[in-house]
Amino acid sequence: MKETNDTLSLTNYKEGILSQNRAILARAITLVESNAEKHLELAQELIKELIPYTGNSIRVGITGVPGAGKSTLIEALGLFLIENQKSPAILAIDPSSTLSKGSILGDKTRMELLSRTEKAFIRPSPSAGNLGGVARKTRESMLLCEAAGFDVILVETVGVGQSEVTVRSMVDIFLLILIAGAGDELQGIKKGVIELADAIFINKADGNNIFFAESAKSEYNNALNYIADATPGWKTKTETCSALKNIGIDNIWKTIIDFETYTKQNMIFYDRRKQQTIDWFEDMLKEEIINNFYKKKNTKTNIDNVINDILNNKITPVSAVKKLTFDN
Amino acid sequence: MKETNDTLSLTNYKEGILSQNRAILARAITLVESNAEKHLELAQELIKELIPYTGNSIRVGITGVPGAGKSTLIEALGLFLIENQKSPAILAIDPSSTLSKGSILGDKTRMELLSRTEKAFIRPSPSAGNLGGVARKTRESMLLCEAAGFDVILVETVGVGQSEVTVRSMVDIFLLILIAGAGDELQGIKKGVIELADAIFINKADGNNIFFAESAKSEYNNALNYIADATPGWKTKTETCSALKNIGIDNIWKTIIDFETYTKQNMIFYDRRKQQTIDWFEDMLKEEIINNFYKKKNTKTNIDNVINDILNNKITPVSAVKKLTFDN
Repeated sequence: MKETNDTLSLTNYKEGILSQNRAILARAITLVESNAEKHLELAQELIKELIPYTGNSIRVGITGVPGAGKSTLIEALGLFLIENQKSPAILAIDPSSTLSKGSILGDKTRMELLSRTEKAFIRPSPSAGNLGGVARKTRESMLLCEAAGFDVILVETVGVGQSEVTVRSMVDIFLLILIAGAGDELQGIKKGVIELADAIFINKADGNNIFFAESAKSEYNNALNYIADATPGWKTKTETCSALKNIGIDNIWKTIIDFETYTKQNMIFYDRRKQQTIDWFEDMLKEEIINNFYKKKNTKTNIDNVINDILNNKITPVSAVKKLTFDN
Repeated sequence: MKETNDTLSLTNYKEGILSQNRAILARAITLVESNAEKHLELAQELIKELIPYTGNSIRVGITGVPGAGKSTLIEALGLFLIENQKSPAILAIDPSSTLSKGSILGDKTRMELLSRTEKAFIRPSPSAGNLGGVARKTRESMLLCEAAGFDVILVETVGVGQSEVTVRSMVDIFLLILIAGAGDELQGIKKGVIELADAIFINKADGNNIFFAESAKSEYNNALNYIADATPGWKTKTETCSALKNIGIDNIWKTIIDFETYTKQNMIFYDRRKQQTIDWFEDMLKEEIINNFYKKKNTKTNIDNVINDILNNKITPVSAVKKLTFDN
């Protein structure tokens, strides 16, 4: 089925997704990703209808430095999951795609084997909007995939900044993929990202590179001693793997399962999901309140004028805020 | 002059500060720090009157791990500045003081020599309010100190998290004070803080500790190769010093002056100050807009109900936001 701008009926979307029709799932995600006001209501109706069928997956965030072989690893993990009777869906968050018009996962050939099987679902990053908008779309796409029966959701992002925090805010477990570097092992990855990781995997641990990968593993495990656990009581560890040679992929899945078991036993899993939903709602609410304020007639002009007055010492910042919000 | 709850007249405050009366400066800061609504208008009037006399200082943020000897270093730097015909004012931001009721700089005996001289001005951290409130007070106190003729403002904070970002947002140059650790040099300092630093000083480089301090210096200088410059075109470097033995304090001041010269030549200094003012205003505006929304009649109850509905799948987060902000 070709994707078009035409929308289906609520019932068609709902029944299509629940009957695991991948083409309709893809069209529903397109609906959710639409920035058109007219699509919003239908999309929200659909999500509301489907929410009872969501939540039955493990949500896995995956980030890593460029060149770490993230796509190869996700493909290897995806194929492993299919062999083990799992249904993986792969989504991406890529804030840079807005600017570059490129997109991670955009080139499906990067995951050739995985994209050829009917048992996985791959969706490139939504390419428009700010990070908040992209995050909303990915989050809602995730719910649609869950309703369509996918039970492992892999959310991929690039390891370059704010997007990891966004991904961390919507997944159960967060994995960091690195490679052994030439010299300084911390190169290229934002320091704060390590603090978010529930597990670190040094990829490309094969051939002559094994020694360096093992050395990087030790270095990271040492560094992790000085960093607070991303998930209380769960000790973040570094392991090696080779996506290319298919070594250690089973171990990645074992780590995910161990993590799920641990966090479900002590309720962290459920508490975190609940808190993620509340935080998401509150963040969107704040964003909308501020957007509405800025959209009011003349507000933009008023604020520009006020900033001018502040810079020309005609009013203090605090007085300016009081003045602008007086009758708000 | 004893500090009381009584306020002076606008003219008395203004003339007192411009004539460099330290007791009146202290009372004006108390006015600015007041959370009482009735003091706000007078405080803002005063700041507006004084703004033309502000800005003629170098604003220096100083943070460091506990135990790094920050107080001793600030005292040594302060005394050095006085010897060199400078007038230092020392302010503090300590978000933890709200909880602990303690306060950095609270114990002036920690800077005994400096607090005894009339040529420096030391003000402990404002002890009430959230970080946003504390930041506003410190920022306005800084302006008052500048109007009173202090030409080097040292803003101290503890190296434990969000407060560094706040301090960085109000100063011209940001210094990080560390010591040689036992083993892992990155221990105790939040990784993101290093990325904010325009210069790093390894303190306690004296006696048997010199070797370790030099080694830590190399390690940090190496790590800095992989971190983007906090200020474009300015290479952050690590140096050693000993506040206790008064070694390298002149070098700290030289670094500050070099940085000031560099950033003034290429306008970064002025652009950053302008942007800091705009950002501060916009952050306060957003905070106030949100506060006003939450303060509205029944909003809290409505939001709690809506969160319940979201968690019970009766409404989607996006629809909930639309509903709550419909007539906003």
